[in-house]
Amino acid sequence: MNRILLSAVLAALLSLPATAAPKPNVVIVFCDDLGYGDLGCYGHPTIRTPNLDRMAAEGMKFTNFYSAAEVCTPSRAALLTGRLPIRTGMCSDTKRVLFPESAGGLQQSEITIAEVLKAQGYATACIGKWHLGHLPEFLPMKQGFNSFFGLPYVNDMDRVADKGPKGRAAFFEPKVEYWNVPLMRGEKIVERPADQRTLTKRYTEEAVEIIRANKQKPFFLYLAHTMPHVPLFASKDFAGKSPRGLYGDVVEELDWSVGEVLKALREEKMDKNTLVVFTSDNGPWLTFFDHGGSAGPFREGKGSTFEGGFRVPGIAWWPGTVPAGVTTQEMVGTMDLFVTAARLAGGTVPDDRPIDGYDITPVLTGKGPSPRDTTYFYRGTKLYAVRLGPWKAHFITQVAYGKGGPVLHDPPLLYHLGKDPGETTDVAKDNAAVIAKLKDAVAKHSAGMVPGEPQLEKQLR
Amino acid sequence: MNRILLSAVLAALLSLPATAAPKPNVVIVFCDDLGYGDLGCYGHPTIRTPNLDRMAAEGMKFTNFYSAAEVCTPSRAALLTGRLPIRTGMCSDTKRVLFPESAGGLQQSEITIAEVLKAQGYATACIGKWHLGHLPEFLPMKQGFNSFFGLPYVNDMDRVADKGPKGRAAFFEPKVEYWNVPLMRGEKIVERPADQRTLTKRYTEEAVEIIRANKQKPFFLYLAHTMPHVPLFASKDFAGKSPRGLYGDVVEELDWSVGEVLKALREEKMDKNTLVVFTSDNGPWLTFFDHGGSAGPFREGKGSTFEGGFRVPGIAWWPGTVPAGVTTQEMVGTMDLFVTAARLAGGTVPDDRPIDGYDITPVLTGKGPSPRDTTYFYRGTKLYAVRLGPWKAHFITQVAYGKGGPVLHDPPLLYHLGKDPGETTDVAKDNAAVIAKLKDAVAKHSAGMVPGEPQLEKQLR
Repeated sequence: MNRILLSAVLAALLSLPATAAPKPNVVIVFCDDLGYGDLGCYGHPTIRTPNLDRMAAEGMKFTNFYSAAEVCTPSRAALLTGRLPIRTGMCSDTKRVLFPESAGGLQQSEITIAEVLKAQGYATACIGKWHLGHLPEFLPMKQGFNSFFGLPYVNDMDRVADKGPKGRAAFFEPKVEYWNVPLMRGEKIVERPADQRTLTKRYTEEAVEIIRANKQKPFFLYLAHTMPHVPLFASKDFAGKSPRGLYGDVVEELDWSVGEVLKALREEKMDKNTLVVFTSDNGPWLTFFDHGGSAGPFREGKGSTFEGGFRVPGIAWWPGTVPAGVTTQEMVGTMDLFVTAARLAGGTVPDDRPIDGYDITPVLTGKGPSPRDTTYFYRGTKLYAVRLGPWKAHFITQVAYGKGGPVLHDPPLLYHLGKDPGETTDVAKDNAAVIAKLKDAVAKHSAGMVPGEPQLEKQLR
Repeated sequence: MNRILLSAVLAALLSLPATAAPKPNVVIVFCDDLGYGDLGCYGHPTIRTPNLDRMAAEGMKFTNFYSAAEVCTPSRAALLTGRLPIRTGMCSDTKRVLFPESAGGLQQSEITIAEVLKAQGYATACIGKWHLGHLPEFLPMKQGFNSFFGLPYVNDMDRVADKGPKGRAAFFEPKVEYWNVPLMRGEKIVERPADQRTLTKRYTEEAVEIIRANKQKPFFLYLAHTMPHVPLFASKDFAGKSPRGLYGDVVEELDWSVGEVLKALREEKMDKNTLVVFTSDNGPWLTFFDHGGSAGPFREGKGSTFEGGFRVPGIAWWPGTVPAGVTTQEMVGTMDLFVTAARLAGGTVPDDRPIDGYDITPVLTGKGPSPRDTTYFYRGTKLYAVRLGPWKAHFITQVAYGKGGPVLHDPPLLYHLGKDPGETTDVAKDNAAVIAKLKDAVAKHSAGMVPGEPQLEKQLR
């Protein structure tokens, strides 16, 4: 956001009384295309995730944790701003995500978690995939982050035309040199092509450094892993080790990474004062066969507004504050992390714009239910589906990727996600009153919706 | 088995030196038609299983745990004898399971876990569903159990013709009086129709009594729940409570039951000396829609030789002996419980007959790999598929229930269960050497196979 507006908003935030307790650190580990079913603690039979399983055993595992979009750019914009992508213009019906030739990005008028927490005295670090605009004015340090180490966009972009097999075949024999994607530190490119084999390892080392460097000051760490988005790469310690093949290697390395982060927090005696949330930006990319993950019991995956596109693993850890060994069905979403982090830091959320997140502290502390009872499922700029309580209505459906335009449903397809989490049995005809209620929620939601200026169609050339 | 043969075999068993340590108690909790994906700790999004999740956190969760058959009767015969159903005659291509009009059952010449452990001084109790023959000569007390409290066969048998809607509709408005199934104590019917709403509760109370009554003597408890086999019934404390509907109510009551069993063991300070194993007799009965469970990421369910028919939840708990919080991919099966229980009790396994189980103590104690590297998938009397290491070959497949005869595959369908646990992608054409190895295993296995006298076709009338 620009400085003048930022000052005004932050002045309002700062006028709140500071909390007496030391401000907790906040770590968000955000994976790319990791599916609900990809972890041991979510039932995967052949991917070994002992660190995440232990994190869940020491913390809280969510079974109704939602990403805010079906693909990457909008999902990330929403997590960092607490706002639906439609409001920030960070979605599109034609482009879906930002590309190297994109000229748009997250506007400086948007307020990120990093900005809110920085105003509360937090050190802030962005490690990993950004994907909210790669032009100088959109990079992480323009959005409240003190530092950035990672990729400006996706690891499958900047494909080198004359290297490797054509089309998708390149993804199945992934070589670093097939993709000329840049690795950045701050606003500078420090490696190109990025050696993707060691990204998870280097991100992790950077994360541990950030943790150890911030013992005297609260910090916010946004660790947005590049993996397990295709093309898949694992370091030599993990490559070829998982029974699940390369995808398993990659997830097992992410699991190792989480273990290192939690270990550093414990060693520095910061574990009792740090909230760590582990989740994913959308469901698994199923069209990549065994290079894509598993949506577990859910229908479809990345790109879809069925549950497999939005329902993601979610684990919260904060020894002594988040109760241990709890599995919760409370409905929460990535946008709630904005509001929750702001509150935990002693700040508040901006009141000059609609915010779609909720404070889920009651859930995290085991003291109450989630204030969230509704989730809106947009694909690009259009609302395709809505969930209210256990009911989900699909007004539009569409093939996640490839041919096939939107299909309108009136009455909508209706599923009871409690009894039928796999969205197998449309029960619209017996539940007219439920549909009326869902339609009412949509009408109210849509009536107040002011779309942001579209950012994803803007082109450099 | 008959007394003379029993004496001879047991004399051999008793000649072994007794172990110095106190003999551990053994509890097997065996659910009916519970699917791999039905528990929180296996990723189910809406069934709440805090007790089983805690059991897994305090013990070992298996992701490669196999039932020995795709349906009930053969699966139970195999668990109790450590022998494939084909060897005991407890399988059939026409009947699949025993019925009220069946005249066959588990032969007295077979040796059960109860018999082996009784010979080692164990008290033995069978609670729940038997389904290995309901004529007097086949009941649990003829197979080494001191006591029996439960149903002689399945809770959907003895359908009362003039009550309720015809056909499957009756299952969806389950009323106790639609099924005239008997509840037995010892060899006597004590209630008919059994009040199925309170079966889980009463089985649990009986199990807790058995535990409390055996503080001075090692015991073997076989707690074979009737649920969640259709028709589903939950007690009033659970009915209508689960977001997953009636199926969820039923599984949540089973979870409560496990909690009560573990609590009793803790209260009596027997937890450090008791191995508890929780598992299921086969996969979920998918044709019953939301009255059936979830196979999680696996293909098909009960009745099928795809993984969904055989891969079941498996949790082992023995504080201080089974390491806590471990998820293992070691391949084990219900038949291994026969051998393992015999060894733990200081007995040994009969050497006068083929035994298909292995001693999985090394896995349970975290000290070594599983001795099992192969699983045979029979449907009735025919071998349909084999797994060796990560590879599974299907020589025959068939629709689990309903129309459609066996389909022969040559070359077999081949799946790599590590990379492709969902059996989605046949890789036979690139793996001729693997297929040769699997065919070799099958040839050796089948060459030594002596089928037992068929028991399931024998009819009373």
